[in-house]
Amino acid sequence: MAYSGQEVGSGLPQGFLWGAVRAGIKVSGNPDVAVAVAPRGAAAAAMYTKNRVVAAPVTVGRRHLAATGGRVSAVVVNAGNANCATGEAGIEGCVKTCMAAAETFQCIFDEVFPSSTGIIGVPFPADKVVAAMSAAKAALGAEAEHADAFATAILTTDTKKKVARAVIDVDGVEVRIFGVCKGAGMIHPQLGMPVAPKGPPHATMLVYLFTDVVAEAAQLREVMADAVEGSFNSISIDGDTSTNDTVLLLASGASGVKLTERLAAAFEGALKLVCGSLAHQIVDDGEGVGHVVTLMISGAATEADAKTVAKAIAHSPLCKTAWSSADPNWGRLMAAAGYSGVAFDPAKVAIRIGGLPVFEDGMRAAAFDEAAAHEAMLAREYTIEIALGEGDAECRFLTCDLTEEYVRINADYST
Amino acid sequence: MAYSGQEVGSGLPQGFLWGAVRAGIKVSGNPDVAVAVAPRGAAAAAMYTKNRVVAAPVTVGRRHLAATGGRVSAVVVNAGNANCATGEAGIEGCVKTCMAAAETFQCIFDEVFPSSTGIIGVPFPADKVVAAMSAAKAALGAEAEHADAFATAILTTDTKKKVARAVIDVDGVEVRIFGVCKGAGMIHPQLGMPVAPKGPPHATMLVYLFTDVVAEAAQLREVMADAVEGSFNSISIDGDTSTNDTVLLLASGASGVKLTERLAAAFEGALKLVCGSLAHQIVDDGEGVGHVVTLMISGAATEADAKTVAKAIAHSPLCKTAWSSADPNWGRLMAAAGYSGVAFDPAKVAIRIGGLPVFEDGMRAAAFDEAAAHEAMLAREYTIEIALGEGDAECRFLTCDLTEEYVRINADYST
Repeated sequence: MAYSGQEVGSGLPQGFLWGAVRAGIKVSGNPDVAVAVAPRGAAAAAMYTKNRVVAAPVTVGRRHLAATGGRVSAVVVNAGNANCATGEAGIEGCVKTCMAAAETFQCIFDEVFPSSTGIIGVPFPADKVVAAMSAAKAALGAEAEHADAFATAILTTDTKKKVARAVIDVDGVEVRIFGVCKGAGMIHPQLGMPVAPKGPPHATMLVYLFTDVVAEAAQLREVMADAVEGSFNSISIDGDTSTNDTVLLLASGASGVKLTERLAAAFEGALKLVCGSLAHQIVDDGEGVGHVVTLMISGAATEADAKTVAKAIAHSPLCKTAWSSADPNWGRLMAAAGYSGVAFDPAKVAIRIGGLPVFEDGMRAAAFDEAAAHEAMLAREYTIEIALGEGDAECRFLTCDLTEEYVRINADYST
Repeated sequence: MAYSGQEVGSGLPQGFLWGAVRAGIKVSGNPDVAVAVAPRGAAAAAMYTKNRVVAAPVTVGRRHLAATGGRVSAVVVNAGNANCATGEAGIEGCVKTCMAAAETFQCIFDEVFPSSTGIIGVPFPADKVVAAMSAAKAALGAEAEHADAFATAILTTDTKKKVARAVIDVDGVEVRIFGVCKGAGMIHPQLGMPVAPKGPPHATMLVYLFTDVVAEAAQLREVMADAVEGSFNSISIDGDTSTNDTVLLLASGASGVKLTERLAAAFEGALKLVCGSLAHQIVDDGEGVGHVVTLMISGAATEADAKTVAKAIAHSPLCKTAWSSADPNWGRLMAAAGYSGVAFDPAKVAIRIGGLPVFEDGMRAAAFDEAAAHEAMLAREYTIEIALGEGDAECRFLTCDLTEEYVRINADYST
């Protein structure tokens, strides 16, 4: 029923136009303003970083969705400047770009959804974004090349563009989902539905999900929360939760197919496929990543416990550096699990790396074969299974190793 | 009233003997078994890692202190093997070394306090430690050279020995404190008084505090908790809390001076000086450390809030890598504070680096001078002040940068 693919290809959802232009914000001179337009508008739901410090576009985007009750006609993204920690001037600059977009794309002001990503604390060049609007309008189109341009322009330290799509056949009519995102560092999204905003943020993971299903904003909020929990909220590159993380889901309704109870399971499944693929692409393209590691924590008393253990391991510099050299150092895994705060009995824990037993009965597994485990960890991607022996809850969490290259990239003065 | 110094020198507390020998556990062949003996016994208090996974010597040491109500006659430390995640055999091996020490130093079994540090998961070579006991006895002495040998033998990845001492003059009689410790990686101690132990650990930070004051174990537990909170519990190198962290405080009583209420403040002050110095030495000798950074978090609603913010920053790879290149990237500081979970208003935050203003009123400080801030961060050591503007609570937390060297050291296959 659902097909998922990683190229833009054909099969884009109807009811959307995409485009991108060079506005002179990225130092590289590459395209840096991306626009997505729903000419007839789209129902919308969004989840934002739970960071207390948020960028101007997050503050403005929240206001707009609250004002419209979940309706978006134009998405304006700039890369190269995060418009974060830019004070009142940052908010004013963001509002200015929304006003220009509303005029250019002939929609009401509150139906413009802004995003920014890039360097923080540098005054936001609103005029450059405003000046780029008419060229952006001219660049719009509904083909793969247009979606591709959008996906490329939003990138910052990413080394490749990240897209995924799924198609659901509903009695001969196609419902399509197309997702696009960016993010390579400052990746440990902790997304939630809008809560009391306190200040200005700066964004690092930006995700845009477009579908042509017919749905209410409330329905979108519901299906989105589940899909985000198992994907973007279950990955970490460096444990640094950005101030601008945003996931936006837009439904144009152009397929004419309603998101009924009958369709719900298939739609949710397809949305999870798309989100899961995008989340994987983010970790796989993480700064300096040499190995993508899936943590399968099972036997936990609660799902929250399983996730707490996974995060402690995913954020442990000692675990992450061991992975970079394919070192089957389960002692560091046990130590990180042990300080996670979750209660468990070490004697009941079993650990397998790449399917091979390494730890059981409170000590090195009898069948532990160091050379074989090392060999398994030389793969670009593998799974570490940790069975806690406390209950039936589990979680799957995607992370990566910590390399000298990561340090080099992020120590590079003033990125 | 209190003098603090970092060399062993003269002025060691009376009532103790120290010594060290080569037992063939360290691959380097360096001395690896250290012994401290209180011929007439000593009142004792200890704090251990809060990690759920603990090494065999932590389990055994807890049992012994509980059995004696806080009395120790001999401390036996081996470096090179952590005796962690070694199952029942590890416990048996530890017990065996304690029995040998009891026989050698003629004390009761429960008055032997064991510690181990080094590689984990490798079977514990108890026989080597047992065989070394008579040589260790022959090596004992009360001079600086003996304490020095003890301080050197317990080291693992440390590049220098770590000692500190303080002397309090009480009506012409000296009360002395001598502290010695090891630790360079897997450093984020979270020490607590003994709680329900659950399994076997592996140790990384080991601290031994010797004093000749006359005190009850209960008094020692009290003065120690405060000193540890502001020192060892307020540092982090990599956020990885070890399974073997132990702080042991021994009082021989040989000075004849009682820890009365009148002496309490001076003694606590001196103990804090010693612990503070040792904690600083640990961070300063941290794996790959290029810069030692003091985080002064003020204006928090509670002390716990201040510490939560400090830890989020101290464990942020993005903050730590920025420090390694002397990048005054306050955006990363704000982001980490923002995801710490502590509630604050970014517009009220003020940040100074090396005394220079960098952030205020929700944006870059008007007086921000990037070149000057960069220059200040080139120093080996400096302070970052973050005033949250929410209350009167504060904390001081010591941490360091994250360098390629740290990754190299810990990615080195099977350390």
